[in-house]
Amino acid sequence: MTAPIKRLFVFPLFFLCIACNDENQRQNTGNINSTKTEDNFLPSWNDTETTTKIIDFVEMTKESGGIPEADRIAVFDNDGTLWSEQPMYFQLYFAIDQVKAMADDHPEWKDEEPMKSVLAGDLESLKSQGLEGILKLVMTTHAGMSEMEFNQTVKQWADTATHPVTNLRYIDMVYQPMLELLDYFRANGIKTYIVSGGGVSFMRAWAPEVYGIPKEQIIGTTLKTEFVSDEEGQRVMRQPTIDFIDDKEGKPENINRIIGKKPLIAFGNSDGDLAMLQYCASRQGPSLPAYIHHTDSTREWAYDRDSHIGQFDKGLDEATEKNWLLIDMENDWNAIYPQK
Amino acid sequence: MTAPIKRLFVFPLFFLCIACNDENQRQNTGNINSTKTEDNFLPSWNDTETTTKIIDFVEMTKESGGIPEADRIAVFDNDGTLWSEQPMYFQLYFAIDQVKAMADDHPEWKDEEPMKSVLAGDLESLKSQGLEGILKLVMTTHAGMSEMEFNQTVKQWADTATHPVTNLRYIDMVYQPMLELLDYFRANGIKTYIVSGGGVSFMRAWAPEVYGIPKEQIIGTTLKTEFVSDEEGQRVMRQPTIDFIDDKEGKPENINRIIGKKPLIAFGNSDGDLAMLQYCASRQGPSLPAYIHHTDSTREWAYDRDSHIGQFDKGLDEATEKNWLLIDMENDWNAIYPQK
Repeated sequence: MTAPIKRLFVFPLFFLCIACNDENQRQNTGNINSTKTEDNFLPSWNDTETTTKIIDFVEMTKESGGIPEADRIAVFDNDGTLWSEQPMYFQLYFAIDQVKAMADDHPEWKDEEPMKSVLAGDLESLKSQGLEGILKLVMTTHAGMSEMEFNQTVKQWADTATHPVTNLRYIDMVYQPMLELLDYFRANGIKTYIVSGGGVSFMRAWAPEVYGIPKEQIIGTTLKTEFVSDEEGQRVMRQPTIDFIDDKEGKPENINRIIGKKPLIAFGNSDGDLAMLQYCASRQGPSLPAYIHHTDSTREWAYDRDSHIGQFDKGLDEATEKNWLLIDMENDWNAIYPQK
Repeated sequence: MTAPIKRLFVFPLFFLCIACNDENQRQNTGNINSTKTEDNFLPSWNDTETTTKIIDFVEMTKESGGIPEADRIAVFDNDGTLWSEQPMYFQLYFAIDQVKAMADDHPEWKDEEPMKSVLAGDLESLKSQGLEGILKLVMTTHAGMSEMEFNQTVKQWADTATHPVTNLRYIDMVYQPMLELLDYFRANGIKTYIVSGGGVSFMRAWAPEVYGIPKEQIIGTTLKTEFVSDEEGQRVMRQPTIDFIDDKEGKPENINRIIGKKPLIAFGNSDGDLAMLQYCASRQGPSLPAYIHHTDSTREWAYDRDSHIGQFDKGLDEATEKNWLLIDMENDWNAIYPQK
């Protein structure tokens, strides 16, 4: 089920990888198989064992002797778990779009890498500059402004920017079944968090409206910041230095730091989420560690062990060995993206 | 109104200062002056202009065109704002108590500073070792174990440990008027957070029960951590290195990082809270930056500009100049601690 992936770039850092998928056609239409009633919270989930396990788990939490309210915490990876991540992380498209948008004010960029390559549309040249080039690209577009300014810039981008393969807006490439799952969890008293390798300020600009998750329940990678108080007022300025990478072991470390509890439920899709799912599984009492397996080469992208975006290898082994919930996108979901 | 403060120690770091107050008698009894009805949320607050301003502000948030629900965020400093902080920060008493509790397993400490001085009860000698000694004391007692182990240790201490001056348990030296205020805010849809220079894991062990604030709404100073996954299971280990000091400019930086919004309401009591209150005051639209002024030398401690715990000098000037809410503990509160 793995679609051929043409790897353009390989970088070791969280949202900095780029790959390219040969398939140019994605279908946004869902095939409604479910026999479930209309009042069901999960209309885009088929009547499979997977769906039953989720519903049974949620029912268990509410039973007498179930899960104390304070412990009803569900954490979700974002890229590949709540929205698509192919052929490259959407935040990198933002960085590239920003270079183009800012270019008029920066005539020097036509001679300055990696902006020169980005402006020329030469991703092969960007690739050849390695991590150093990508980091410079990200810092140029993500730092040097206040949090409020950055928030507004991302918001404007998210309102209009579209994906080069699907021509859908990025924010319309969220998974309809996951939107339903978030609502279903919240309706049952489970607090939903994002815990993503993506930038926290990037996500906070659009994710609250799209997912119904408030800013304070979004955890992600951070830049260092500086509080400034002067004649122009008080603001937090974004510095061009990584503060914390919220990926792999960083996920449970950040969950401990910010939430302070082992999560009851954890959803991910890649090896970058494995430590978070292990952390969830290690809590005393019941837990629901769950992996989404990208098996649908027709309606989305199919990839796992060999993908350089969202590689799912060790996690797939461990999920199988430990009988964690494994969601098969092709078989468990009857829709991928929301119908507009 | 400033009581004489006998300074024992002076250290620059957040919870590491020690001072000593000459007054040995504290009164826990409140003098009920209020004419307010019994159903009032704030029975320990007198009918003063201060109390009226708080109530008017909360009523405003709920009016049509008031404050959007997502922006109803109130942040509170802890030491000196929600509980007492004299004659030294309570977390340092914990560190000293821990050295004593752990001493049997560490015979080497009788020759190893600063534990040697702590075990001998020689605070003057501890003082002479400066910041280096205090840091070693804190790291010895706060690091090298899992978060769960540390949580249990603090919880056991908090359940029984008592204050050397009042003989009350530390967790009974929280301010009754502030407990009422927290309840009042929450009853009106305002989300309450702690943003303290104290250790986040130290506070999470007792503060949820005492203040009704869940762990994920407690922000504080952090140590670096490491996620460990081995045959003993998965856990987050506490490392003997400071990660982030949540004081002064660190407070708005951490509020931005973790909450992602300028707070609507901010309560503090010292210059360490000034940046947080400025940040609150700078939000677009209404805000309520508030300072608690320790004016009550009979029922608590009176201190401000010259105190080396909770120094309140620049903050007092700015609060006066900008007409921020200034709570006079002696005149605005008819009780200090909860009646048991």
